[in-house]
Amino acid sequence: MKRKYLMTPGPSPVPSFVREALSREILHHRTDEFRAILKEAHEGLKYVFCTQNPVLVLASSGTGAMEAAVSNLFSPKDKVIAISGGKFGQRWADIGKAMGLDVIEMNIEWGTAPSVEGLKSLLDKNKGVKAVLTTLCETSTATVYDIEAIAKLTKEKDALLVVDAISGLGQDRLLTDEWGVDVVVSGSQKGFMLPPGLAFISVNKRAQELMNSSGLPKYYFNLKKALKSYEKDDTPYTPAVSLVVGLGEALKYIKEEGIQKRWERFEKMAAATQEAAKALGLELFSQRPSSSATAISVPSSIKSTDIVKKMRKEYGISIAAGQDDVKDKIIRIAHMGWINEQDLMMCFSLLEKALNDLGHKFKAGASVARLQEVLYG
Amino acid sequence: MKRKYLMTPGPSPVPSFVREALSREILHHRTDEFRAILKEAHEGLKYVFCTQNPVLVLASSGTGAMEAAVSNLFSPKDKVIAISGGKFGQRWADIGKAMGLDVIEMNIEWGTAPSVEGLKSLLDKNKGVKAVLTTLCETSTATVYDIEAIAKLTKEKDALLVVDAISGLGQDRLLTDEWGVDVVVSGSQKGFMLPPGLAFISVNKRAQELMNSSGLPKYYFNLKKALKSYEKDDTPYTPAVSLVVGLGEALKYIKEEGIQKRWERFEKMAAATQEAAKALGLELFSQRPSSSATAISVPSSIKSTDIVKKMRKEYGISIAAGQDDVKDKIIRIAHMGWINEQDLMMCFSLLEKALNDLGHKFKAGASVARLQEVLYG
Repeated sequence: MKRKYLMTPGPSPVPSFVREALSREILHHRTDEFRAILKEAHEGLKYVFCTQNPVLVLASSGTGAMEAAVSNLFSPKDKVIAISGGKFGQRWADIGKAMGLDVIEMNIEWGTAPSVEGLKSLLDKNKGVKAVLTTLCETSTATVYDIEAIAKLTKEKDALLVVDAISGLGQDRLLTDEWGVDVVVSGSQKGFMLPPGLAFISVNKRAQELMNSSGLPKYYFNLKKALKSYEKDDTPYTPAVSLVVGLGEALKYIKEEGIQKRWERFEKMAAATQEAAKALGLELFSQRPSSSATAISVPSSIKSTDIVKKMRKEYGISIAAGQDDVKDKIIRIAHMGWINEQDLMMCFSLLEKALNDLGHKFKAGASVARLQEVLYG
Repeated sequence: MKRKYLMTPGPSPVPSFVREALSREILHHRTDEFRAILKEAHEGLKYVFCTQNPVLVLASSGTGAMEAAVSNLFSPKDKVIAISGGKFGQRWADIGKAMGLDVIEMNIEWGTAPSVEGLKSLLDKNKGVKAVLTTLCETSTATVYDIEAIAKLTKEKDALLVVDAISGLGQDRLLTDEWGVDVVVSGSQKGFMLPPGLAFISVNKRAQELMNSSGLPKYYFNLKKALKSYEKDDTPYTPAVSLVVGLGEALKYIKEEGIQKRWERFEKMAAATQEAAKALGLELFSQRPSSSATAISVPSSIKSTDIVKKMRKEYGISIAAGQDDVKDKIIRIAHMGWINEQDLMMCFSLLEKALNDLGHKFKAGASVARLQEVLYG
């Protein structure tokens, strides 16, 4: 019976005060008691999303909210640009195609962030693009995109901006209203410190108007219906009650620390992780590293999946390997939600041991020394 | 701080051994440990669904699985019959229309079950009907439909049969394979003794074949993808991990008692509830009462919503009023999932008190005496 440590970029650990909330006696969802909890959750979500617009709570994984964005905003053959620089950008393209949209894929190299100039010329070349679908933190490469600059461009070009912030929200800065992001999607199991099973989606006025002309079929994810229920702190279909109760506790915690302080703390944890990797003679995989997770290239003599297996089996620590083409080439260490500085210390102490066992040479203790400096120096 | 008793037809109470499971440390879903739990859940679901075919687990409310059935089996303009004798039969019609199907509504009076003869002539009149969409227990009227007879008919007529068993499964008999029901949909928060947030859908070979020609857009609820993952005890998108862990415990409990014994026990509880209502001079609303819940007409001098409010406010007991047209005319008492004989005793003891306060005349203790006889006599 080994103690287990989850340091994967989702699911991320669920703190005990949230787990306690999940285990409470079930409430009926059509009661004043539950509506008060949902109302507070709505307010807390607006705080984390940095928006004054409604943030809807759906009973689904984050992918459900991505589909909801597409099926509620668009009509078949609508032209959209999907920025694909990893598994989750690709998902936007896949959903768009499944819904019959005319998807222009902006494929960029994994580990890079989209160039705003490149996006601008793509928008100039393709007249009538209705929206740009992209990602805050592309989880598969641990890369954060410059959403502020992209939002400035899409506003100029009169295209809607839809951002998947499933893994990034809470760690990577996203000033939804200030930057003018129209739709933001997130999920419960990353920065929100909950089990998976809830998705969130914020929609501004412009997006709400666009919903009126959408011609795609939808029922469960009908956001116009959800918006109507939202006004009464209700949901059109049975909500995932226990997860919403847990969400209340998680949001209370986030508000207490403050979103600004959290951003700064995760930025520091990300910087420390980057420096610790370099201290082991490793290179960062991402050219624009996220504050939510760090992707590290492993020496070509070692398969990253071997590191992951060793860490999990021998030390109980779960980190992630890569996905698809970079499956064996990178490891990803999360610093999101409930993961903290002490976890990083422990993780690198044992990552050193694993790397050493697998034949990689470096000065023992180097990464931990660097973590100490950056985090507490 | 009053103790609270949930006797509504969903959500129904969650036992402590399930709530404990919900509060465990989170597992990563792409691990052997979680796959083993999901595998056991798959087996347990097949047992409760009485099927050898796959039962898929979705992260959504039951309505999500209803949409999944429609969007995966059909194409726009496909002709289907939706039997609507209450709020949830109506939902089949609404989903079908939202997806662009040619929906023939078989509207029957609330509280009645569909006549198989009536359905037969509707099928004879409308050539090319692809499927019949109906309900095991129509929750809004607490009426159970004769799915065995309907299945015999749809097989004869070569139409697919799709059954919403969200509130009925586990209490009302449903022999999916033996009767030849092609698709069965259910949800977590009724007979399965879990919080809401999971949906289940069983699909037989015939339904799986039909999926190949479906022309409706889908992504999150793509069942062909889900079936592929099912083979590896996996899910295409992040599952609602904590609820699946809870499901494992609930299924263990159901298996231990045995589904046959549970059917018999709930049949007895339903009979006792019916008799207790009659002992108070009240009439049953449903002409074919379900084993999952009982709908009782209240005297015309009393609004059922007043009974419900009084029961909740003064005694902490939640029962349900009616919905839509019968909102003020009926009360609904659930006997499903974790609700047991003792709960019924307590519920009727205080229902008597509430009815008496509201001016209804009967012999005090009459319903409880009748419950004693039927349940333990």
